Amino acid sequence: MSDPLVLFMPSGKRGHFPVGTPVLDAARALGVYVESVCGGRATCGRCQVEVQEGRFAKHGIISSNDHISEIGPKELRYAEKRELKPGRRLSCSATIEGDLVIDVPQDVQVNTQTIRKDVDTRVIERNPAVHMCYVEVEEPDMHKPLGDLDRLKSALEKDWGYSNLHVDAHLLPHIQQILRKEKWGVTAAIHHDEETDRPTLIALWPGLKNEAYGIACDIGSTTIAMHLSSLLSGRTLASAGASNPQIRFGEDLMSRVSYVMMNPDGREAMTLAVREAVNSLIDKVCTDEGISRSDILDAVFVGNPIMHHLFLGIDPTELGGAPFALAVSGAVHLKSSDIGLPMNPGTRVYMLPCIAGHVGADAAAATLAEGPHRQDEMMLLVDVGTNAEIVLGNRHRTVAASSPTGPAFEGAEISGGQRAAPGAIERVRIDSQTLEPKFRIIGVEQWSDEPGFAQAASRTGITGICGSAIIEVVAEMYLAGIISEDGVVDGALAARSPRITANGRTFSYLLHEGSPRIAITQNDVRAIQLAKAALYAGVKLLMDKLGIDSVDQIRFAGAFGSFIDPKYAMVLGLIPDCDLENVHAVGNAAGTGARMALLNRDYRREIEETVNRIEKIETALEPKFQEHFVYAMAIPNKVDPFPKLSAAVKLPERSSDGDGGSDGPGDSAPRRRSREERAARRSRG
Amino acid sequence: MSDPLVLFMPSGKRGHFPVGTPVLDAARALGVYVESVCGGRATCGRCQVEVQEGRFAKHGIISSNDHISEIGPKELRYAEKRELKPGRRLSCSATIEGDLVIDVPQDVQVNTQTIRKDVDTRVIERNPAVHMCYVEVEEPDMHKPLGDLDRLKSALEKDWGYSNLHVDAHLLPHIQQILRKEKWGVTAAIHHDEETDRPTLIALWPGLKNEAYGIACDIGSTTIAMHLSSLLSGRTLASAGASNPQIRFGEDLMSRVSYVMMNPDGREAMTLAVREAVNSLIDKVCTDEGISRSDILDAVFVGNPIMHHLFLGIDPTELGGAPFALAVSGAVHLKSSDIGLPMNPGTRVYMLPCIAGHVGADAAAATLAEGPHRQDEMMLLVDVGTNAEIVLGNRHRTVAASSPTGPAFEGAEISGGQRAAPGAIERVRIDSQTLEPKFRIIGVEQWSDEPGFAQAASRTGITGICGSAIIEVVAEMYLAGIISEDGVVDGALAARSPRITANGRTFSYLLHEGSPRIAITQNDVRAIQLAKAALYAGVKLLMDKLGIDSVDQIRFAGAFGSFIDPKYAMVLGLIPDCDLENVHAVGNAAGTGARMALLNRDYRREIEETVNRIEKIETALEPKFQEHFVYAMAIPNKVDPFPKLSAAVKLPERSSDGDGGSDGPGDSAPRRRSREERAARRSRG
Repeated sequence: MSDPLVLFMPSGKRGHFPVGTPVLDAARALGVYVESVCGGRATCGRCQVEVQEGRFAKHGIISSNDHISEIGPKELRYAEKRELKPGRRLSCSATIEGDLVIDVPQDVQVNTQTIRKDVDTRVIERNPAVHMCYVEVEEPDMHKPLGDLDRLKSALEKDWGYSNLHVDAHLLPHIQQILRKEKWGVTAAIHHDEETDRPTLIALWPGLKNEAYGIACDIGSTTIAMHLSSLLSGRTLASAGASNPQIRFGEDLMSRVSYVMMNPDGREAMTLAVREAVNSLIDKVCTDEGISRSDILDAVFVGNPIMHHLFLGIDPTELGGAPFALAVSGAVHLKSSDIGLPMNPGTRVYMLPCIAGHVGADAAAATLAEGPHRQDEMMLLVDVGTNAEIVLGNRHRTVAASSPTGPAFEGAEISGGQRAAPGAIERVRIDSQTLEPKFRIIGVEQWSDEPGFAQAASRTGITGICGSAIIEVVAEMYLAGIISEDGVVDGALAARSPRITANGRTFSYLLHEGSPRIAITQNDVRAIQLAKAALYAGVKLLMDKLGIDSVDQIRFAGAFGSFIDPKYAMVLGLIPDCDLENVHAVGNAAGTGARMALLNRDYRREIEETVNRIEKIETALEPKFQEHFVYAMAIPNKVDPFPKLSAAVKLPERSSDGDGGSDGPGDSAPRRRSREERAARRSRG
Repeated sequence: MSDPLVLFMPSGKRGHFPVGTPVLDAARALGVYVESVCGGRATCGRCQVEVQEGRFAKHGIISSNDHISEIGPKELRYAEKRELKPGRRLSCSATIEGDLVIDVPQDVQVNTQTIRKDVDTRVIERNPAVHMCYVEVEEPDMHKPLGDLDRLKSALEKDWGYSNLHVDAHLLPHIQQILRKEKWGVTAAIHHDEETDRPTLIALWPGLKNEAYGIACDIGSTTIAMHLSSLLSGRTLASAGASNPQIRFGEDLMSRVSYVMMNPDGREAMTLAVREAVNSLIDKVCTDEGISRSDILDAVFVGNPIMHHLFLGIDPTELGGAPFALAVSGAVHLKSSDIGLPMNPGTRVYMLPCIAGHVGADAAAATLAEGPHRQDEMMLLVDVGTNAEIVLGNRHRTVAASSPTGPAFEGAEISGGQRAAPGAIERVRIDSQTLEPKFRIIGVEQWSDEPGFAQAASRTGITGICGSAIIEVVAEMYLAGIISEDGVVDGALAARSPRITANGRTFSYLLHEGSPRIAITQNDVRAIQLAKAALYAGVKLLMDKLGIDSVDQIRFAGAFGSFIDPKYAMVLGLIPDCDLENVHAVGNAAGTGARMALLNRDYRREIEETVNRIEKIETALEPKFQEHFVYAMAIPNKVDPFPKLSAAVKLPERSSDGDGGSDGPGDSAPRRRSREERAARRSRG
């Protein structure tokens, strides 16, 4: 008779093991990650598993209660002291007695931890770069004069298989005392990220230390977001965000690069500013959760190339002009003390690789989170800011580029534009018969034509129009026939509606009569056209590279994507044709990717390998970019069909000759090109 | 016809290589270490070799001038610019055209370097842990957006084979600028010590950097000695020494441990003191040679366990009492910045392993220098201080121990004793007929009975007697019959010579009538007997372990050994019987071992492996130690024969019953034991 078959869920890994094998050993042998700090002493409770009952014909396994050992004295002692949920067993103590299906839960809760609701609740399979290992070290012996540290290393090799350990220098003066404090029982934190690296002893505590934390941080140009996670349970325990204080040196990326170029201490001042902000966020998440900074042992940071460089103390000037050379593109491994972030003296820092000069570690992290490279379907992943970072691909091939969209999508360059804030218009609808608008503002539930709106809106006033509504209002103007596919506001409609008003040689659409008066001018429409054309042209270039006409899935990462309605983005032609139900906003995907890299070192290797494979397209070097740009000025596009969009949304009939209008893109090309060049200059320094 | 045979001297490594192979490639393929910084561009001149002419029948090679390529344009250019000695070739450019014998010179001199005479001139085969590698890095390219650092890594992999490089964090902010300064030509310093470690980029310079330095330092309790070496030529360029400023906290090791135990800041103060002294020595050797501290890239330190611990900032208290537990016994790898020694930010530090609680990294270094483990002959290696560190063995087996000799050999506990200094008696002879002495003092050429002595000695006076002379005077007293083999001063001789004077119940020997009056008292003889008995008993214990009765070679390391005459050491019975021509003082063998570990990382592995294999004997735990000690109180020994010594030196006849004397060791055993215990307490805290 063969050995019992054991199947681990959710990974599905399986193998035969002799009767009496501890479940933990079986998991390890199969490469199933089950945490354990105490090394099989049944004291840490981290190695809990759930034994599935009943028959599992589809796995070919018949499992029953007597296929696992009875609860023994060690488990009983743990259950009495710490609580063990029904059905749960400590895999270090429970042994295999017959065929088994074992669930490895992702929510092993040992210490009481508050779980925040505002956190992405994605469950991330764990295999952190830092492991906690309890050992009992041999006492010194005159017959075998091995040093304290050397006996500690022997114990870590014997119990945990860590041979050839490196030791952080800062520990040397403290090892004697730590070993003697709890009778030679200590918990060692071992950092082992890359397989080719030697594992390193980075921290040491007397007795059993049953918790270790990590932080994942996305350093955006505008906002810095941080998550505090348990490295042992994988749970996110606290999250915090703050404005990037570099804003005082320049609103957008390129003005910050300019600041560095103009000021001898500019780089240093901005590095200090961002590190101080990160330090404050560390304080905040630690205070929120009531933990000590010194219990944070690992940290992952992502950011766009300029944030990445400034955070590392690298001058970003080279990123401001061709050839947009990164100082470092590969993943970066540091100690937190190297970059002035005091946590534990042994805390390690990992930064994801940058993809290219304008496609940063944040885009890499978003890629890791959304995983185009893990699937057969073709995914377009877009993060819109002053530059749009665009990744397109599937498991076979992935390409990436950035497009100089400029700041129009963020409300800059728009006459009534503003950042998303209470009082800003965020949704717009236009009646195609009356041309009358209705809208919603941030902070008010009702639409502007609903009862109670005026009173609710009086608290903040109606202050302007933010990015998401700019997309909507221009798209609605197009759907209502106020603008043509070439983006020209139709002055003839002034006869039908007082909302169409002359403005020199061009016309505007009056969205809100008040203070301030909010109108969409011809220039506003042009700014959106330029921005969306740049984005679309970049996407189209990548589609050309892959030889595809449409994509299967679209993901909007970042704040911009969270607020826009995918339908209007497609009506305007920001993105190519796609089934609308496959277009999703994914929030701070970069932050999620950073958390994945924090909790599982395999994800680090995955994204490093993926970034190596990604083909980088420099839009400035591609002659076709100009052509795509010109066609993309039209709404949704002069040449590309949008069959899936047309099936879902009734689009205006396309005029037979869009070049005829006096303000159409055809004959305004010289002016447009010069604006486009200005935009490119602006965004690339 | 087979490929030409190439033989490299002095290693004797040989192999067949196709015609046209560069000599450097052949050397590399055979594991012959030939330096090269420029990577085959014939600009650094480091890869010089000498081509031997003529027939070398014993190697089976016939070599002639046309067996190597003509001097080409690259070599010519180098020779014109930098000088190439006759017969020398650049092995990167010279190619194999027939059978060859190639000398790899150990004195490749590229920059003009003064060579100091006062330095151990031992030639050490080189394979340093730090290599200098010139590369030309690809310029940034928008089509391949690899970062600057990433392209540098590619170049180092392509030209030098360093894959999977680590990068020191401190370099990140500077890489851009360094790469651009000399048109993308840079010299990288790569640290690669242990094979299982990844090589690390630790420093970077624009253009060709054709020099790199290292320091080797022996931190003694009394003296700190430092050598500055070129890592590229292997030459020692400067040496310096200084008193260990810890002396102000305590003269000997155990008083320093006491100081730490009694003073809360004691450890820190002593760590600071020794690091400051080391820093001053670094300044001194750099100033002497006119180099910058930042060009020192590697450093090796050795010291006894207490110096080792204090230097690393480790509390040495545990070393003051049983079980004498080292905090760390294995080799230690650090960055110099970890221990407050600013050199280059990337400078690495290596400390040799300690052998046991009382047998330190200095003893390991001396072992490495003298190499008992490399030979078949049985070598006894002794370093005498307050504790004697003793290593005994050959390639098959090596044992080590320390013996509590106490400070008598250093002149302490001796009535007229003093440290070696001008005016101290350093040599003594006693006429066995007249019992009249003659002596020499430090700083004066003549013996005391020679013309001109009185005048020369008047400059300093005759101030006391130092360690070497204490050995000699007691041995000469024995040889002249003034003391018996039991060490009793023979009062009956007072009738024959006025130099024998009564001193209570015992007698003294008057060595010098003056101010101060210098006499050797019965207590002085007893102190020397105790010290030498401790040393001999330790040695004897190790000989027991190996089952041997005599040794083939004896090496005295350290200052004490440099001044004593081996003959007298053996007459007194400090050391076992041995051919006198095989007993040598080897000076600062620990310093030499440190230099070896600095210049060749293979020596690091060799001594680590050797220290692992060395069997450590704790004398305090060995019952036989007491017995050996009692027998060793007699001169030279109560039970062991000294046939080789007897053949060379006429020893007094041994009395048939040494126990008969009223002051003999037999019946004074209780008193002796209590003194011995006091000595042991004193030296172990």
